[in-house]
Amino acid sequence: MNSFHFELIHCSKKSRARVGRIHTPHGIIDTPNFVAVGTNGTVKALDNTLLHDIGLQLMFCNTYHLLLQPGTQVVKQAGGLHQFIHRKLPIITDSGGFQVFSLAYGSVADELKSRGTKKQEGSVLKITEEGVLFRSYRNGAKVMLTPESSIQAQKDLGADIIIPFDELPPYHIAPDALKTSLDRTHRWEKRSLDAHLQNRQGQAMYGVIHGGINPEMRQASCDFLTKLDFDGFAIGGSMGKNKDEMHQLLSFTLPLLPPEKPNHLLGIGDLASIERCVPLGIDTFDSSYPTRAARHGILFTAQGGLNITKAEYATQFSPIEKECPCPTCARFTLAYLHHLFKAHELTSMSLATAHNLYFMVQLMQKYRNHILEDLL
Amino acid sequence: MNSFHFELIHCSKKSRARVGRIHTPHGIIDTPNFVAVGTNGTVKALDNTLLHDIGLQLMFCNTYHLLLQPGTQVVKQAGGLHQFIHRKLPIITDSGGFQVFSLAYGSVADELKSRGTKKQEGSVLKITEEGVLFRSYRNGAKVMLTPESSIQAQKDLGADIIIPFDELPPYHIAPDALKTSLDRTHRWEKRSLDAHLQNRQGQAMYGVIHGGINPEMRQASCDFLTKLDFDGFAIGGSMGKNKDEMHQLLSFTLPLLPPEKPNHLLGIGDLASIERCVPLGIDTFDSSYPTRAARHGILFTAQGGLNITKAEYATQFSPIEKECPCPTCARFTLAYLHHLFKAHELTSMSLATAHNLYFMVQLMQKYRNHILEDLL
Repeated sequence: MNSFHFELIHCSKKSRARVGRIHTPHGIIDTPNFVAVGTNGTVKALDNTLLHDIGLQLMFCNTYHLLLQPGTQVVKQAGGLHQFIHRKLPIITDSGGFQVFSLAYGSVADELKSRGTKKQEGSVLKITEEGVLFRSYRNGAKVMLTPESSIQAQKDLGADIIIPFDELPPYHIAPDALKTSLDRTHRWEKRSLDAHLQNRQGQAMYGVIHGGINPEMRQASCDFLTKLDFDGFAIGGSMGKNKDEMHQLLSFTLPLLPPEKPNHLLGIGDLASIERCVPLGIDTFDSSYPTRAARHGILFTAQGGLNITKAEYATQFSPIEKECPCPTCARFTLAYLHHLFKAHELTSMSLATAHNLYFMVQLMQKYRNHILEDLL
Repeated sequence: MNSFHFELIHCSKKSRARVGRIHTPHGIIDTPNFVAVGTNGTVKALDNTLLHDIGLQLMFCNTYHLLLQPGTQVVKQAGGLHQFIHRKLPIITDSGGFQVFSLAYGSVADELKSRGTKKQEGSVLKITEEGVLFRSYRNGAKVMLTPESSIQAQKDLGADIIIPFDELPPYHIAPDALKTSLDRTHRWEKRSLDAHLQNRQGQAMYGVIHGGINPEMRQASCDFLTKLDFDGFAIGGSMGKNKDEMHQLLSFTLPLLPPEKPNHLLGIGDLASIERCVPLGIDTFDSSYPTRAARHGILFTAQGGLNITKAEYATQFSPIEKECPCPTCARFTLAYLHHLFKAHELTSMSLATAHNLYFMVQLMQKYRNHILEDLL
């Protein structure tokens, strides 16, 4: 049983932008789309019913976190991640590799930071051909993560889309070290795919294109991975030091991917990046930015983000956006939200998160409409 | 216009317990009932629609907090507290006196502590016949609170039930100092009532019975206050150092109140106290205990509170209570809640709070049913 497939609905006449539908065992994801990050099996400050009601079609959960707490065995016992977290719609999990390499060391990181900006140190104890030995940030225990154990973990979780185990090399890396990392990542991805294909379980697997900011290595990564039986492709690793570099890199990389398969841009979903990447043909974006911004009082509007803690909002008795039908705007004013943030009420975070995610849902719908009309 | 009135429905044949209905401009409060504490205009970790849906008929907001943030003028500009916080059901506000005397000093207190256990020091600068001068915990500004300014603040807020300005003497106080305090409190309450009666605005005012743990002074307080035109009575001040002392004090005090008017027990609403006080004829209880307990992972069940962070819940794939129809139990398991608490997810607090408040709603319904059947 593998009900996963990608339906390409329209390619823009104006750019490489495209509208499609990813079919999964738990329903459809209209593309291009934004993917909410729910690291521990919940979007921070929302429950999964609210997330569902806001219309987020795909949720990103982190295998690394779920492996350490509550443990993927517990989730399996619960009947899988959908059952455990009470989510009926599609879920994607990553391999844990990204967090092991970028997050697991130093102080406990509460949430995803921008990808590729941290150096390896701290809790990563050993990288071998077999996999990575690291120290759990929760209890200090040594944990070995390999392609096979990552896939086993993701089988236990049972997400609709899973990711092969990969290495995240730092941005500042010598070309030969990058080549060594890339080759090993390819071997790890192949091992991950082999493990997955032994028991598809209705799951789809996206290969992760690596190669850092080196176009030849990106090309090599696409060449290698697109020959394998992946259901789609994610673009990972360092994308450069700014948005121009990322844009250049993706302009080069996306045409190397098979157009009949869906693609995903890992860990990038700020508004400016989405605007620049949709015309390049990116199908899905995951990012904790909209929810993290919300918790810090940055509320999205068509005119840009507003900082609700500013004094000017203390007496504005209108919603964040007048036309916004989100559950927050339908009920509460800027003045009340300002007050809740000033009073450090947890409720402020839930209300702000709901608005920002609803904004993302509406924004992606607008992009899809524009593509269908060849306006972008 | 004053649509406030109390309808006495049934007095138990077994105790002084009674079932009634408090009619207010924003609807009915069935009694005996539990009153949710929403200090800053929201119950912590819930939004006011959820609170409404859970069935909490009365919400307690704190004038002291709202005076300092966002300022009662802002709330007035918004059209009053109901409008500002988007609540359609009844609200009660206190006078600010309790917080000035018990909370305003020392470090910023996040939430209400048990009443009457703190000594006066710190931010209270001066107590005179006129009122109290204190220092704002928010910005250090000097604020003068008087009976008249407290009532003006509560007029601006526009709650259904308001409270006269009073002094909270400490538990350990010499009889003559208590007498001095009580006499001043009575003068302050009279001034508050006079200020209120100049413009009822459809609001009801409950006099606050003081006198600490001294029966004669409680008697004097009842004698003095019940002669005034209050719509109901709250019992405040020190209730003694344990539940037995409180029980004794309330057994003595309640028969001194006019049965045709509703009464409220200020700041006490733990399960054991409710169980002991309902048979004494208490109509409403406010307490932050159920919501604070929830945020610390204590979940209410018919068998007592359970600590969800305990390892034994990690693999219990059943709801908190099998028969509980609350929004948390209807969707989520003990194992998932345990996981969310272990992962320090904010969502855990919302889900736990919703359950505990729902539990309180059901519990009070049970008490009312038992009284109607003369079982208690």
